[in-house]
Amino acid sequence: MSGFEAATAVKRIGDGRYEADLDGDFGFAEALNGGYLMAVLDRAAVDASPHEHPISTAATFLRPAKPGRAELVVDTRKAGRTAATSLVGLVQDGRPVVEALITTGTLGAAAEPVFAGPAPAVPVPPLEECTSMLPDEGAEGFAGQVDMRFDRSTMGWLDGTPSGRPEIRAWFRLRDGYGPDAVSLALTVDALPPVALNLGSKGWAPTVELTWHMRAVPAPGWLAVHGTGRLLSDGWFDEEVEVWDSTGRLVAQSRQIARVGIGVRK
Amino acid sequence: MSGFEAATAVKRIGDGRYEADLDGDFGFAEALNGGYLMAVLDRAAVDASPHEHPISTAATFLRPAKPGRAELVVDTRKAGRTAATSLVGLVQDGRPVVEALITTGTLGAAAEPVFAGPAPAVPVPPLEECTSMLPDEGAEGFAGQVDMRFDRSTMGWLDGTPSGRPEIRAWFRLRDGYGPDAVSLALTVDALPPVALNLGSKGWAPTVELTWHMRAVPAPGWLAVHGTGRLLSDGWFDEEVEVWDSTGRLVAQSRQIARVGIGVRK
Repeated sequence: MSGFEAATAVKRIGDGRYEADLDGDFGFAEALNGGYLMAVLDRAAVDASPHEHPISTAATFLRPAKPGRAELVVDTRKAGRTAATSLVGLVQDGRPVVEALITTGTLGAAAEPVFAGPAPAVPVPPLEECTSMLPDEGAEGFAGQVDMRFDRSTMGWLDGTPSGRPEIRAWFRLRDGYGPDAVSLALTVDALPPVALNLGSKGWAPTVELTWHMRAVPAPGWLAVHGTGRLLSDGWFDEEVEVWDSTGRLVAQSRQIARVGIGVRK
Repeated sequence: MSGFEAATAVKRIGDGRYEADLDGDFGFAEALNGGYLMAVLDRAAVDASPHEHPISTAATFLRPAKPGRAELVVDTRKAGRTAATSLVGLVQDGRPVVEALITTGTLGAAAEPVFAGPAPAVPVPPLEECTSMLPDEGAEGFAGQVDMRFDRSTMGWLDGTPSGRPEIRAWFRLRDGYGPDAVSLALTVDALPPVALNLGSKGWAPTVELTWHMRAVPAPGWLAVHGTGRLLSDGWFDEEVEVWDSTGRLVAQSRQIARVGIGVRK
């Protein structure tokens, strides 16, 4: 076991209690990525459930998580035949860091949609036309774990020319070949840089709340990730992410609300 | 105090403990409306917080709520200067009925958006062209509390001609003249009939999880409510609602995931 699987492993230490060893490579500076943390919470929720998939994960981020030991508490609130719900908390040094209401269920791998809305109006360009943000393949940290290839037209913020449109589009896969699966999708929905960077915002945009829904079992291959936003007002910004698999299926959707820091362009 | 204000009143009975008397008029048959329940939870969360508005409410619906006495438990998880987060549970007969992670903050009534995305492509038609679903004004129950005027083109499911597009558009206000305000918006985001009815689904579509975000302080007047959905697959359906106020501001946005019952048209 290595890479993403090891980094998200949970060890059962009691009834509804788990421990994890959080991997600093899934973060930036001192703060671990929210999607990575949700992946750990979802893994614990599924382990404690009779069902296979985290259908709904509504996570609130209370404090930055640090690399190292964390404890998870899974408190089952309802155990139904179709779905089960638990409150899952991640605790470090005795303080709650992330809490999530997680509903698990089991999606059929061969389920055919009764209705599927249109794919995003602007697709991610072909992989060979997209760009890694990395100078080389020797990157460490988050970029060393995750292979993302960006639509260049959505990355103007990198060189000081933000597009003015809160959109980022990219291809996504884990470098170690893991997944995609139910747990890695939690990472995927929060892997893009903040789309508010294209509105001229500066710096970190801490996620306050993120809800994501798993909608289908993803097929092998690259995932197309579409990030957008609706409103930046009073320091609050929403970001919506849709994840489409290699067969063109919508496999995950999320919305988060984040604080956008000082330095926003008026 | 009467109408919506009385129906959502919470009485503090201890540290983080409240009681409410749930009003059967805010429901259908035996099940109370999820938006009404969120309004009660949000009222308790705001009362226990130094902040004024429920910025983020991520609610999971465990069991149907019944009219009558309910207890609310507000467990503060973080009390910050900008935002505070609590876990709020609604309990009846000793069993958890709804649980929500609620983050409160205070939005400026005069805040000007830094960025606002476009209004929905298809507006709600002028009020005089929209229709109430009621035969007369003497309606009881939910329709006696809430005045909604629907875009007829989105209501074909009523007479057996669903449009095939998961969309419902309507104007909304409370009949007693209350609001709109932070608490009534919780009701508004879950007041439409299930948009999956336009896909030919039959019967009740129980909400499993609904997250809504308050984005601005609503101006007086009618609210425009836009409901859509992306994917109906494996018995699960997402529904997104945007609420726009009389000045054309996005004031609330929500997504829910619901079970869609037997009888779905394939």
